[in-house]
Amino acid sequence: MPINRAATASVDVPRGLAGVVVTDTVLGDVRGVEGFYHYRQYSAVDLARTRGFEDVWHLLVHGELPDATQRSAFLARTAELRRLPVEVRAVLPAIAAASGGSGALAGMRTALSLLGAALGFRPVYDIDAEQRRADALAASAAVPTLLTALHRLGQGLEPIEPRDDLPYAANYLYMLTGSEPDADRARAIEQYLISTIDHGFNASTFTARVITSTGADVAACLVGAVGALSGPLHGGAPSRALDTLDAIGTPDRIDSWIRERVLAGDRIMGFGHPVYRTEDPRSRMLRGIAQQFGGPLVDFAVEVERHVEAILAELKPGRELHTNVEFYAGVVMELCGLPREMFTPTFAAARVVGWSANILEQAEDPKIIRPAARYVGPGAPVAVPAVA
Amino acid sequence: MPINRAATASVDVPRGLAGVVVTDTVLGDVRGVEGFYHYRQYSAVDLARTRGFEDVWHLLVHGELPDATQRSAFLARTAELRRLPVEVRAVLPAIAAASGGSGALAGMRTALSLLGAALGFRPVYDIDAEQRRADALAASAAVPTLLTALHRLGQGLEPIEPRDDLPYAANYLYMLTGSEPDADRARAIEQYLISTIDHGFNASTFTARVITSTGADVAACLVGAVGALSGPLHGGAPSRALDTLDAIGTPDRIDSWIRERVLAGDRIMGFGHPVYRTEDPRSRMLRGIAQQFGGPLVDFAVEVERHVEAILAELKPGRELHTNVEFYAGVVMELCGLPREMFTPTFAAARVVGWSANILEQAEDPKIIRPAARYVGPGAPVAVPAVA
Repeated sequence: MPINRAATASVDVPRGLAGVVVTDTVLGDVRGVEGFYHYRQYSAVDLARTRGFEDVWHLLVHGELPDATQRSAFLARTAELRRLPVEVRAVLPAIAAASGGSGALAGMRTALSLLGAALGFRPVYDIDAEQRRADALAASAAVPTLLTALHRLGQGLEPIEPRDDLPYAANYLYMLTGSEPDADRARAIEQYLISTIDHGFNASTFTARVITSTGADVAACLVGAVGALSGPLHGGAPSRALDTLDAIGTPDRIDSWIRERVLAGDRIMGFGHPVYRTEDPRSRMLRGIAQQFGGPLVDFAVEVERHVEAILAELKPGRELHTNVEFYAGVVMELCGLPREMFTPTFAAARVVGWSANILEQAEDPKIIRPAARYVGPGAPVAVPAVA
Repeated sequence: MPINRAATASVDVPRGLAGVVVTDTVLGDVRGVEGFYHYRQYSAVDLARTRGFEDVWHLLVHGELPDATQRSAFLARTAELRRLPVEVRAVLPAIAAASGGSGALAGMRTALSLLGAALGFRPVYDIDAEQRRADALAASAAVPTLLTALHRLGQGLEPIEPRDDLPYAANYLYMLTGSEPDADRARAIEQYLISTIDHGFNASTFTARVITSTGADVAACLVGAVGALSGPLHGGAPSRALDTLDAIGTPDRIDSWIRERVLAGDRIMGFGHPVYRTEDPRSRMLRGIAQQFGGPLVDFAVEVERHVEAILAELKPGRELHTNVEFYAGVVMELCGLPREMFTPTFAAARVVGWSANILEQAEDPKIIRPAARYVGPGAPVAVPAVA
């Protein structure tokens, strides 16, 4: 029975809950001052450098890196979960058609909601940890299938069935294009995906945990997170950073273009991060990947980065503004042939694993998250006037 | 450009954010010690006693009760918005079929997501306040249509088109059953709906506000809120309170049934509230409505209430445990012919208006809500082991 406690004394906190510790976690952390972040006890960048996507997925949801036997089993299990139930597949054309103008994340939000219902997901507190993990794996594994199918349907193309013999990242690119990607591109996207699985307590992760705290099913939690990620202040920027490169156009225009915007107080997409005071470690890794491909886009991006950092250091001294993840993420995705409207959805295809791990952790602590608001309107009650 | 601030000092707060003030609001408040809650400056119960649903809806989203002209315009506008776009209506049978085992809220979550995309909802920070309100009205007005259509399809029945000449509550009952409800039942449900539009900063309202804070579209915010409401710790109880009445069965069994459960430490559904230390004002109002109908169910409910309060006062002295909203809400919905699986969805058909008002208020303050977690796992980094 709920405890009928007294009205809780109100606690004032910073706006936007910045720095407010909502929970303990063993999933990882971001150390902004050091420019370092980790998944469980391992550097996320080191994991991206040395491991496959499924290894890191296993680490997050099972708590440890897999051995060879566990890896085979996990690859087989997640590959099988890529295939959609027939009643979901049948509705995708209608979802794609209705969602046409609203972007791939809106379609995915709908499709993932439907998938959870079709798979009969039940409230997280009504099932055990094993079933919760099974639900989370099923939802995550299906995300690339949903995303690529909706994208292709939107282009008037047939969806492509997943291939069991390809790992997550390669299969994603395969389902998008219909051809098996070359190894370098598959690996570049795999490293991008690993590097973006989780990153501290961002708004979508927090959304997933708030919904979990009510005991809702895993799909309800993930669908809420997708919604939060679709907000431009959260997940909306990787393609916009690339749009900035396009808008600048040529190296000789960098200086005037950037100065004009900085002096007007505009945001420069792809630069600055709320947590890092150093270079974003994801940015450094992705620049390295981009430079392995080379070419004019990469050269231009590096030049823009160098100029912008210099201009920002001059105009905003002491602020330590550097490229953030989205700057080189956009470059890498472009190099790997991903269409720009799929940049944020691709981010979602990685982050769904992080959300899942957070949902599983939150579900171990069945306590509803329910903060307060302060009423600042006119004194109540005022008598309700007679009907006009 | 985002400010590249230092890692924020961490702020410790109560578990579940209890009492943590996340925002200022002019939408209303709950005064737990007094047993009073209000929408803007008016007692919510007084509004339910004296006004129609649309009046209160107008109050919440437009900031004031309508005059006669505003009322007619608002009734006409929201009635028109009940009709679904053809591409959404066409998908409902498939959503109902796929969601069959997962309850009406899972279907509604999917359908509302689809509706937002079909209506081309855009990020809240990319549109003005008028367009945000238009989106919120369109989504809210369609909720009863979606809910009743999905319910009927699940029963093998054809959906019933909304009627423009009926107000919100009467039209909801009409679409559910196909016959125009009698005035007493329509008014009872209308009063229930008004009384449950909003109630402080509950988990679904908070979810809607977190998603809004990222700049996502109104559908993304509402779909997340529906997900939170689907959690048993939040919206899941009105039908379970009635199940308790069924389980007790007859008046002579009340005492032993309740004592056994209280002594075993079980929750008694329908009793106790995290905020109220007095009788829940919604409970008092709904009991009065139920008693106007009268009959054996009402008599039995009143007797159970009296016994349980006495037993709880004896076994848990000083805890002030009373019936909460869901106890008599269940009774009233049962009296009005609503099937039990529609109790929580009916709650959603009211709360969507409260969510909408919260989304509109949150969108005026474009600052992402992003709290923190405390990493408590093993020290990082540990070197990533070689691949097994």
